[in-house]
Amino acid sequence: MNTIAPVELAKAYRLINHGPTILLSARDNGCDDVMAAAWACGLDFSPPKLTVVIDKMAKTRQLIEANGSFVIQVPCVAQIELTHAVGTRSLFNEPDKLAACGVELFSFDGFDLPFVSGCTAWLACRTLAEPDNQQRHDLFIGEVVSAWADTRVFSDGHWHFEQADPSLRSLHYVAGGQFYATGESLNVLTP
Amino acid sequence: MNTIAPVELAKAYRLINHGPTILLSARDNGCDDVMAAAWACGLDFSPPKLTVVIDKMAKTRQLIEANGSFVIQVPCVAQIELTHAVGTRSLFNEPDKLAACGVELFSFDGFDLPFVSGCTAWLACRTLAEPDNQQRHDLFIGEVVSAWADTRVFSDGHWHFEQADPSLRSLHYVAGGQFYATGESLNVLTP
Repeated sequence: MNTIAPVELAKAYRLINHGPTILLSARDNGCDDVMAAAWACGLDFSPPKLTVVIDKMAKTRQLIEANGSFVIQVPCVAQIELTHAVGTRSLFNEPDKLAACGVELFSFDGFDLPFVSGCTAWLACRTLAEPDNQQRHDLFIGEVVSAWADTRVFSDGHWHFEQADPSLRSLHYVAGGQFYATGESLNVLTP
Repeated sequence: MNTIAPVELAKAYRLINHGPTILLSARDNGCDDVMAAAWACGLDFSPPKLTVVIDKMAKTRQLIEANGSFVIQVPCVAQIELTHAVGTRSLFNEPDKLAACGVELFSFDGFDLPFVSGCTAWLACRTLAEPDNQQRHDLFIGEVVSAWADTRVFSDGHWHFEQADPSLRSLHYVAGGQFYATGESLNVLTP
């Protein structure tokens, strides 16, 4: 059963607002790459924008610079090995990296971009021209042009991990192969 | 008992790598302010740098622009009400905001900056001159010049929430008063 549904752009920032480690993917000229990044972050609400830090050593960066678009997706606990693997291995010296890391790709109609199966949210982004930030800081700014989420954990503009299998929770990377899963939901009563 | 210890700069990025919502504080000319920010993120390892998005409406931003330095600190579950309060109330129309929100400040020797008591990590930062990013994107870049953490949850370069009281876990904001606490520790076996 397909549990993926579109997310309205006004709520797209919420897909990464809890600070998960993300998977970054891009495609150019028949080549796809996927990498992990802990340094991705919201930047603006309307239009929704985000930042992501991409090292000059990454093949994914080369594809983004050539093509001008990319996907930020939110991997889940079930994908912890995959997430760590794509974050530590490189397409430059391992041409079959994606298959070796267990990555399966799929498409959304109208987007010629590689989306990673099994994630819980996807944000299709176009790169804003920020050559100074890209060169000096490895900082890329993307405008979110479309977003989707797995309704088992995100619907009506909110995550609800507490109602789903723990394997669907997000990952938060620290270092040395250690992650934290997203934990307990806590609410402040608002007037 | 004082459980606060310095964190070596090479490991300082780990204090925010798991994507927590942070408290941002600044001081200028006898005025202190503290606000919450979900959009703070690592940018570089050495020297350690980070980004934080600060709305033009925030008094804290005015103080940072005047003084050139700020503190990023990691609040914990015990501070959820405080975190939400300083993120929704403004010093501009509430001169006693900090007291009203339950904020207590303390100092580290050699730093004329307001540090928030009860947090689990503190990063003292100096603002890098990035007028274009500040004006166009509300994006501030700080270089971390000193860092500290509560050894009950961070020591030897790693968080160990699983060994401490749950009230010391970090907060990850979504929207509308809803947060997630940092959850289960998960490890990928590395060669």
